[in-house]
Amino acid sequence: MIIRVHELPVRKRYPLRISRGTSAGSDNLLVEVEHDGVVGLGEMAPYSGGAVAQTPELARESLAAWAPRLEGLAPWEMQAVEAALDEVGGGVAARAALDLALYDWVGKRLGAPVYRMLGCDPARIVPTTVTIGILPPEVVRERVPEILARTGARALKVKLGSPDGLEADRAMYSAVREVAPPEIPVRVDANGGWTVDGARSMMAWLAERAVEFVEQPLAKGAEADLPAVARGRPIPIYVDESCSVARDVPQLAGVVDGVNLKLMKAGGIREGLRLIHVARAHGLKVMIGCMGETSLSIAGGVALSALADELDLDSHLNLLPDPFEGLRMVDGRLLPSEAPGLGVRRAQPGEEEANR
Amino acid sequence: MIIRVHELPVRKRYPLRISRGTSAGSDNLLVEVEHDGVVGLGEMAPYSGGAVAQTPELARESLAAWAPRLEGLAPWEMQAVEAALDEVGGGVAARAALDLALYDWVGKRLGAPVYRMLGCDPARIVPTTVTIGILPPEVVRERVPEILARTGARALKVKLGSPDGLEADRAMYSAVREVAPPEIPVRVDANGGWTVDGARSMMAWLAERAVEFVEQPLAKGAEADLPAVARGRPIPIYVDESCSVARDVPQLAGVVDGVNLKLMKAGGIREGLRLIHVARAHGLKVMIGCMGETSLSIAGGVALSALADELDLDSHLNLLPDPFEGLRMVDGRLLPSEAPGLGVRRAQPGEEEANR
Repeated sequence: MIIRVHELPVRKRYPLRISRGTSAGSDNLLVEVEHDGVVGLGEMAPYSGGAVAQTPELARESLAAWAPRLEGLAPWEMQAVEAALDEVGGGVAARAALDLALYDWVGKRLGAPVYRMLGCDPARIVPTTVTIGILPPEVVRERVPEILARTGARALKVKLGSPDGLEADRAMYSAVREVAPPEIPVRVDANGGWTVDGARSMMAWLAERAVEFVEQPLAKGAEADLPAVARGRPIPIYVDESCSVARDVPQLAGVVDGVNLKLMKAGGIREGLRLIHVARAHGLKVMIGCMGETSLSIAGGVALSALADELDLDSHLNLLPDPFEGLRMVDGRLLPSEAPGLGVRRAQPGEEEANR
Repeated sequence: MIIRVHELPVRKRYPLRISRGTSAGSDNLLVEVEHDGVVGLGEMAPYSGGAVAQTPELARESLAAWAPRLEGLAPWEMQAVEAALDEVGGGVAARAALDLALYDWVGKRLGAPVYRMLGCDPARIVPTTVTIGILPPEVVRERVPEILARTGARALKVKLGSPDGLEADRAMYSAVREVAPPEIPVRVDANGGWTVDGARSMMAWLAERAVEFVEQPLAKGAEADLPAVARGRPIPIYVDESCSVARDVPQLAGVVDGVNLKLMKAGGIREGLRLIHVARAHGLKVMIGCMGETSLSIAGGVALSALADELDLDSHLNLLPDPFEGLRMVDGRLLPSEAPGLGVRRAQPGEEEANR
């Protein structure tokens, strides 16, 4: 197979502020895998907060290092590809982009959407949340109704863990619940911005205010303190930054209630499936989330989404414009395309304009 | 999809004696799944020793109960099929037969061998063992050279746990090692026929006699005693009867070294993959084994076999005749066919004769 890498810069409609900082956009990469006249597409979205910052530079270096090892392989030879990548080493987000391109290629070659190749049942796809970044209450009151109306989403994820402290978190959450219709479920994500005491206090407070659950209360690396937060918890706890690959799951079982799978952390669909299977064997719930991805990578998450209990696949809805199209939002549920592979294509210029 | 069930009686060339009894053949079932002009084939092989005896009668009842629920589904809708089966309940070996037929159908429909659909790398397939049932030493001395020569296998699995006691086990093992060329690796399977003390004693004895590892030293249900056998073990321990599905794996981690996946215990390829993923996340080794199956079900194990550390896929080599063909034994390694789906077909009458 031949691998080509292209720039895929994306700009956010609304900058996203979380506990660790603010993002107004990112230099994503588009990865093309060509073999036997068929081209598969994948995407890398940069992020920090893991063990190694997944920068576009690291991704380009990784893909360049892998390319000569992959020349003699066909895209369906995924086990051999994984073995080559393990030997060479490299960035996990680049690995995800390559994995997505391989699945897209195989689906296009076989004439089947990836979700079908995985045997997934779209009827089981639950509504996705859209994310409200850390904002002052007065902005929340305008932003929440606009986002719900524009995206068609029917569930919210609220970023807490504000550097301004728990008072700011409480003010923001109250503003969200004030303007969100009561039938809209709301969950919160602290992105590791709380202490043990802060987490216990916020979880007790949130439990009385119609929250579904909390995500990543403590920072990555503070997993030893999770039992202190989890003991007698009034609401379920999911972890995100604390869980990237299947091997991270066993030590979290019995401590938390669920894990947030992101393809950019796991390294793609193949490891994503493994993570889901391990979580299930331990009785853990599974959420599928995303980084700052276009519809292309999001389509990879959607291909798996029937296997998840909770979905937070919304980053493409906050892009100006989303350079890909093909996914559909129906009654708040993000559904896969019936086109082969990941089922997305470059957005037409006119449609991009219309999305602005 | 439409489901049809046919008798598939098989007769063993050599009756197989294990700790729990002797089998000279079995009333297997052939399951056909027809949809959209394509027919997928799967097989059920009966067995006892699990929580529920997997009889042909139970399998027929299960398939009959599932059929109306599956009429409106296509074979690729595997998640929906699993949900329907979970709701109705039924035999796990019948479930495996159906799962195999679904994978065969999807592969045939897409024009791809199942091993490719799973991204498996045939170069990673290790040699398979052939099994030597419990036999008197004088028979062992004739049988082992004949079996190695006829099958082309280059590794042996020896059934111990004889009802005649440890002395009989030692005599049989010694006879095997006496006639097997020294380069042939030998492992043993007690099928739960030992006590804790017997297991510890036999493992110490075997460790000095070039054994690879032991399988299922204690009976299913005696898992609480496994740590007493495993403490300071001189050779690795795999479990078979103690581990059927992915959810059985976590409690075995840290106690044993590996698990034996059999599609008839797991319910097919889909659960088999989950079991492998969970075992890997826990650092456990994986063997893929079989019940008294023809090449048809064995081909399902072969489709996954590149993911395993050890293989014991040999039951078809002891049939008179094997009603299916398509697998190849090359240098002791059982390789998949390149034909779509599971890649096997009904053996031609002349070839059946030739196999007698």
